[in-house]
This record gives sequence, C-alpha cells and structure tokens, in this order.
Amino acid sequence: MSDSYTKLLLLSKQTALLASTQRLLEWDQETYLPQGAIEIRSLQLETLAHLIHKSSTSRRFAKALERLISIETGHIHNDQLSPQQAAALREWRRDYLKAIKLPASFVKKFAETTSKALHIWAEARRTNNFKLFLPLLEKIISLSRKKADYLGFEEHPYDALLDLFEPGMTSSYLTPLFHQLQMGLRDLLNRIPSKPRGEEGLLKGPFPPSQQIHFAQDLLKAMGLNPLYSRLDQSTHPFCTDFHPKDVRLTTTTHTESPLLSIFSTIHEGGHALYHKNLPEEHYGSPLCEAVSFGVDESQSRFWETFIGHSLCFWTHFYPKLQRAFPEQLERLSLEEFYRVINRVEPSLIRIESDEVSYSLHIILRFELEKSLIEGSLKAKDLPEAWNEKMQTYLGVVVPNDRLGCLQDIHWSMGAIGYFPSYALGNLYAAQLFATFEKAYPSWREEVSKGELLFIERWLCEKIHRYGRQFTPKELIFRSTHSPLQIEPYLTHLNERYSLENFFRT
Amino acid sequence: MSDSYTKLLLLSKQTALLASTQRLLEWDQETYLPQGAIEIRSLQLETLAHLIHKSSTSRRFAKALERLISIETGHIHNDQLSPQQAAALREWRRDYLKAIKLPASFVKKFAETTSKALHIWAEARRTNNFKLFLPLLEKIISLSRKKADYLGFEEHPYDALLDLFEPGMTSSYLTPLFHQLQMGLRDLLNRIPSKPRGEEGLLKGPFPPSQQIHFAQDLLKAMGLNPLYSRLDQSTHPFCTDFHPKDVRLTTTTHTESPLLSIFSTIHEGGHALYHKNLPEEHYGSPLCEAVSFGVDESQSRFWETFIGHSLCFWTHFYPKLQRAFPEQLERLSLEEFYRVINRVEPSLIRIESDEVSYSLHIILRFELEKSLIEGSLKAKDLPEAWNEKMQTYLGVVVPNDRLGCLQDIHWSMGAIGYFPSYALGNLYAAQLFATFEKAYPSWREEVSKGELLFIERWLCEKIHRYGRQFTPKELIFRSTHSPLQIEPYLTHLNERYSLENFFRT
Repeated sequence: MSDSYTKLLLLSKQTALLASTQRLLEWDQETYLPQGAIEIRSLQLETLAHLIHKSSTSRRFAKALERLISIETGHIHNDQLSPQQAAALREWRRDYLKAIKLPASFVKKFAETTSKALHIWAEARRTNNFKLFLPLLEKIISLSRKKADYLGFEEHPYDALLDLFEPGMTSSYLTPLFHQLQMGLRDLLNRIPSKPRGEEGLLKGPFPPSQQIHFAQDLLKAMGLNPLYSRLDQSTHPFCTDFHPKDVRLTTTTHTESPLLSIFSTIHEGGHALYHKNLPEEHYGSPLCEAVSFGVDESQSRFWETFIGHSLCFWTHFYPKLQRAFPEQLERLSLEEFYRVINRVEPSLIRIESDEVSYSLHIILRFELEKSLIEGSLKAKDLPEAWNEKMQTYLGVVVPNDRLGCLQDIHWSMGAIGYFPSYALGNLYAAQLFATFEKAYPSWREEVSKGELLFIERWLCEKIHRYGRQFTPKELIFRSTHSPLQIEPYLTHLNERYSLENFFRT
Repeated sequence: MSDSYTKLLLLSKQTALLASTQRLLEWDQETYLPQGAIEIRSLQLETLAHLIHKSSTSRRFAKALERLISIETGHIHNDQLSPQQAAALREWRRDYLKAIKLPASFVKKFAETTSKALHIWAEARRTNNFKLFLPLLEKIISLSRKKADYLGFEEHPYDALLDLFEPGMTSSYLTPLFHQLQMGLRDLLNRIPSKPRGEEGLLKGPFPPSQQIHFAQDLLKAMGLNPLYSRLDQSTHPFCTDFHPKDVRLTTTTHTESPLLSIFSTIHEGGHALYHKNLPEEHYGSPLCEAVSFGVDESQSRFWETFIGHSLCFWTHFYPKLQRAFPEQLERLSLEEFYRVINRVEPSLIRIESDEVSYSLHIILRFELEKSLIEGSLKAKDLPEAWNEKMQTYLGVVVPNDRLGCLQDIHWSMGAIGYFPSYALGNLYAAQLFATFEKAYPSWREEVSKGELLFIERWLCEKIHRYGRQFTPKELIFRSTHSPLQIEPYLTHLNERYSLENFFRT
C-alpha cells in the first residue's frame, strides 16, 4: 500500500471511529436510554456530528486526498494503486465534495428545523392535525430545495436528494420505471383472488415476548449471524446499525397478540446485518467498508424477508420449531394455514403494515408526491388531498384522516426527502438478485426446507456484500445479475407467488 | 452570568459531552458489547480520549480560562462571580494544570503499557504466574513514578498519584491515620466472637436471576432512583457511571446460589447513583457538576451499603419483601438469621468478598505496599512475599498462592496506583457522615423499618451531593460533619454493630 494511501486511510479511520460512536449513541437512544435523558442525548449527538463534519472536511484530509486524486477532476495521480483503492478514492472524493458543498450554517439550520419538526410531526399525527405540521413541512421542503441547489443537479432538483440515498439515481430514470411498476402491481392486485377473511384470527395468543426473542435469535443464527460479533435487542421500531463488521446491532419488537412482526422484522433486519457483517473489514475506515446505497441495503433485507422468509420451504423447516416454541397457541394451525396467513394480500392504509404486493405502490405514491413538492408543482397545503386521491387510485383505499394518511411516516419530518424510492428499489434489486440466485441454486427450496441457509449468505456475500462501495449501485447490480435493473423479475415473482394455482401449491 | 464565564462553560460543556460519550462506550463494553468487538471498541475509546485531551488542553480553552483566572497564580480577575463560579474556576485550573503537565507521548505510552498489562495480568492471575506479570508491573511502577515527577509533589511521589483520586490527600496525612485504624480494626477483629460456621448454608437456592433483578429495581426505587433518569443493567463487575444527572447507569450481577451479591452491589451502586443524579445539573459542563473525589463518591455507596443496607431496621421492612420474592427459598429463614448471615465477620483472602470489619485492612495493606513500591523501598519482585506477610499480620490469613494474593486486583495492571486508599477513606467518611446523620435523625431506625428511605437521600443531597466540586473533599467533610476526618466514628460503629451484646439485639 502506498504511504499516501495509508495516511489517508488513517485519517479517514478516525472519522469512521467517530461516526461509529455516533451510531452507538443512536442505538442506545432507541434501546436503553432512560426516557428523561433525551435532551442530553441530542446534545451529545450534535457534538459528534460537528466533529465528524469537521474531520471529514478538514484541510488535512483534503490535502491527503488531493495527493492521490484530483479533487477537481477526479483524475487519479498514482497508477500503483489497486482497483479497490482507486474505487475508494473515487468514493472519498464523492463524499468530500458533498460535505463541503453544504455550508455549516445551512447544516445547522437544517438540523434545528428537522429536530423541531420531529416533535411537531409526532404531535400532529397524534392529534390528526395536518395544519399543525404544515408550516414545518413547508420549511423543510424549501430547505430541501435549497439543499439540492447547494449539491447541484443536471435535470431535476429532486435528483440531488435522490443521489444522497441512491448514488447515480435520477428521477428521469425512476419515473418511467415506477410508472411501469405501478401498472403491473395494480393489474396484479386486481387479479389476486380475494382471500377468505379472518385468517389472521387463526393466530391466537398470547405469545410471550421472551419466547419470541428466543425464536428470533435462533432464526438469526440459522441465517448466519454469530452472537460473538452481533446482538439482537428490542426497540419500538426495528432497525439495524453497525459500528464495524465485528459489531453489528439489530433490533426487533414483540407484540403479545402475534409473533409475526417479531419474526419478519428479525429476518428483515437480519438481512441488513449480514450485509454489514460481511463488508470487507480490512478496508475499515474507507468507503469500501460501507454499504453502497440505501436501495441495495434494502435489497438485502427484502431478499431475506420476502423471498426466503415468506416461502413455503422456509416454513417447512421453521414452522415445526415455531410450534414447539408456542405449542398451545399453534397446535391447531397447520403449516399451510400459517403460510396463507403470512402471505395474505390486502391493500390497506399503512405502508409498514402492507403486504408484499401493495408495498411498492405506497412507495411510488410517496415518490411522485415528494418529487412534485420539490419541483413546486404541488403545494404542501394541498398534500392531503393529493395523497388521498392517489391512495384511492393506486390501492383502492379510502383515507379517513391524515393520521392514517399523509402524516403516517416520519421521513419528511426528518428532512429525508428522496429516501422513499430506496424501499421500492430494494424490492426490485432483491427480485433480480433472487432470479439470478434461483438459476445458480435451482434446488434451493430443498436446502432451505432442511434448514440450510448458509449458502444463501455466501452467495449474497460473493455477489454484493464483499464489494462495499467498490462499484456504483448500477454497476454492482449489473455485475451480479448480468442485466440492468428490470421490473420483470419482481412482477414475475409476485405473479408466481400469488397466482391462484400457485398459492395453494405446497 | 458574565459573558466570559458563559463562554468558558460552553467550551467546557463540549468536553463534558465528549467525556460522557466516552463513558457510554465504556458502559456498553461492560454490558452489551459482543465479545468479538473488543478491539474496535479500544480504538473508539482511544479516539475519544485523544479528542477529550485535545479539547481540555486547547489554546482556546486556556485563553477563555485565563480571561477569568490566572493560570499561573490562581488569582481570580473578576469579582462579579458567585462563590460557585469562583470554585468552578479553581477546579478548572486544577484540571487544566494536571492535563498539560503530562506530555502526549507519555500519556500514549502509559495507555499502551496498561492496555497490554491488563491482558497479561488476567493471564497471570488465571495461571497463578506472578513472574509473567512482573515485567509489566515493574514498567507500570516506573511509569507511575515518572507520572508523579511530571505532576509534581512536595513530600512524597505517592502524593502526586493520591491527589488524582483524592484531591489534597497526602501520604504523611494518611500514614498515621491508617496506622491507627489498622490497630483499631485488628483489636476489634480479635474481640469479635467467632460466629457459628455454616450460616451461609442457610441460604438455599436457586434464586432465579430475573427475580433478583426485580427485587433490585424495587430497592433502587425505594432509595430514590427514578427509572425516568436512570437504569439498572447487568455486568460481571457491578459499577455506576453517569452521562449527565439525568442519565445515570448502574449495574449489578446475579448468582443463582445466593441473592446477596446482587442485593448489596445494587445498594452500593445505588448510593453512587444518587450522588451522581443529585449533582447540580444547571452547572453541567463545569466541575461543579462532578463528584468531588473517589473517596467521597465511595462514602456515598458505603453509607447505603453498610450503614443502611446492613442494618436490622432496613431488613425489618425489606426482608418480608425478599421472602415474598423467594417464598420457597426463604420461608424457613427468620429475619434474625438472615441478619446474622449478612453480617458475618470472617477475615478472608479476597478484598471484594470481605466483611465490613476486615475490608479496610485489605486496603491499608495495599496502601502501604504501593507507597513502598513507588518510593522504591520495595522491589516489585518482592511483592508476593511482602503481601503474604502483611496478610498474616493484619488479617491472620495464610495466602496459599499469588492468584488469591497479590494478583487478585485489577487496579495495578490498569496503572491506577493511588486508587486503593479511596475505599478506606470512603468507609471513614461514611461513618463520620452517618454519625452526624444519626444526630439529625435520632429516630431514623423507625422510619427505615417502615420502608421510608427518601429522607436519607435528601439529607445526603443537602450535605454532599448538591455541592459537586464546590469545596475540596476536606472542606466538604468539615462543613457537613463539623469535624475534620476522624477514625473514631467508624470504629465506634463497628464496635456497636459487632459487639456481642449488640449483635443479637433486634
């Protein structure tokens, strides 16, 4: 390794160590922080954020970077570097340019506004009062528009925001893709036979939380997570974070009435966790040891949650174990009934409770709305009306109030405009990866029905995890699936799983 | 508040926020960190330590401080300041002078040596191999001697190290005090009637850990801790730490064979926790919101653990609750029997397992040895012999091997020479405070036997907690007890509790 590269890596590692410490503060806030300590926690987070920004934009760092790559042109001076190192330089430069484009005063104002907005949004949602949230939403939209200007874009201001979550993604690429997807999903929804109601009622609790956690831990072990380097805790909203590939933390949540949320959030977060544990540790401190995008990260969780975790073969192995964990509660529910319960399709109001088929429609709706808000073609005050209209058109659902409508998600109050598309992209990436995986392992169902899951992790590691940010998301998907992003694999999968003749196939 | 003071406080608060984040990293390391992540955790801690040192010795901070107090002479320039603010300046200056006296290269070397020594010590203890630890111990002693030279001292190099834990304390003050205490304790030990053996056998488990934790939480609530601002977790070695008065974290540990360790470590750490929760929050970021010394901090835990927690009146109220928590295990054990079990006196090899009477003798032995090691009158290689000799003289105990002898404690491997005296000082301070408390509340036993404990916290808060570092430890003890430090209250208490006629008094 060249001396200059080593020096740059060392500087960047300091920033990475601070960033991981910041994530510990956040993890603790969601898991163990005493409720009365929330204010002091905000101050600790602010202090860390300030130091991280300072460290990643320092003149010392810029000089060390410039020694290897021209910050202006992206030209790499040193031809002794490995392809990985060259890729790391490209990504370091990308991050640096983004970081210096936003003035410190703007970053501060943005953070203050969203911090306030978070509280107000929670109150507005609780009291079903959109007008309370409106002034903050307007401010966040105008600040986000300004952010886009600072960051720069070629065609659409929304692209600058998208790029923060999915590097290289543009709205001119997404718009037709999502339109096509929307048509396909709506068509599918119309064709899916309506399922007998009341199947959820088949799950009769209570399901003691401690047993749910025990079962969740067994699932994670089977997926390939080692408790030596990871841990599962509980939080209101499940999430996954990492401080290093050797310290990955995930959470789940339990409801005594049903074990399903705990099970599927565990599998979902477990998919993220495997990605983060398999990032190349030897590059810790460089972008090579980071997830490439929110969409690809989400593809890993959705691959596990929907393609593996909602398959019949998965439960062929795990359902008897679940029955042993809850013998009284599940003794009369057959595997086939359980499978139908977990795969019920029924469009509903709330994104995070929605089934696999309608989920992406919730996302497309949000994408279209936030794009319009950013370009100014939709005014914030008209959001509820536009939301409700789209819900009716796309999902056939009537929104009774804003609490169950446009106030349901936290993202906008956090200033995370441009985030939502990652969820739908995650589904598409996952489906395309899964189609490739199925070709590589035509007999995967047999293995999985025997409880063998480790070959799945190995395959995903080989195709996705081990690269970190070495390739762009687009390159990575092309390399691993030999095809640019398509919607067909996703629609094919859904058609397969939910067509009448297949649904009851065992 | 003057502008200059506000500015100084703001700078110092940044350092305090970083220090509290460092403590979160440490807390997590002892509670939830996956075992395989220990290396990355060390790096995070190093990064924070570096930033904290940088921030507390920065020119910016020094300038802000110098504007209010002469760093050279300690003269305060501004006469508009409150007594609290003047005290804060005195302590800020004290910390600053200590921080700048140690060269960064020395601090780094010290940290590297002790980090290595910790591992070697653990291995040496495990394999009962003092020779393995000896080279590291020699290095730590010579580095500590050097540290004393950097920090400066008037009479004895050990004073410089003592002062890090107990500001203002000197070995010329401690030596006669501890000698006198030693004589008193040995005399008492000889007079205490030997108790019938096998009383510990009266506790028949198993005691399920979850119920121990439940009982511990009830104890903490009764003591005055609010779960809104504090939490109890489990760790191998119980401890208490705080990130802010509104975020105090304590831990306990459970053994299924006996609930005693969990109970008394909870009460002990609960005593620390009350101190930290009651520090004056409005001064957060300044020394006024910090514990004044290790000894005074220990006095708070010992006040609760031994004076309250080992009293008969305490268990008059809590023993029936404990019996309800463990009905089968305790139904045949009477209150009086339980009281005898928890107050059994029997000199033994291990400090942390020792009873209230012999505990301070373990400390005095360590104080004398480490003083000799630092002044060079004792060579590290001769430590085991010196240790074993003193154990026989002071406690009448024969040390069978170094694992149960001079290798038992972690402190020296951490480079914490000068720490041990705080434990004995804690006992003395606590006894003197308790004697004052008894005068203020002659009927305290009645209240406590009804489960009323909150008046104890209020009294300790008024006398100790609320001052933080406003006074020196010596001043604080004098103000709260109207007497300089004495050994009599401690000996009187022990004589009272352990004299034959009193011991069986109910």
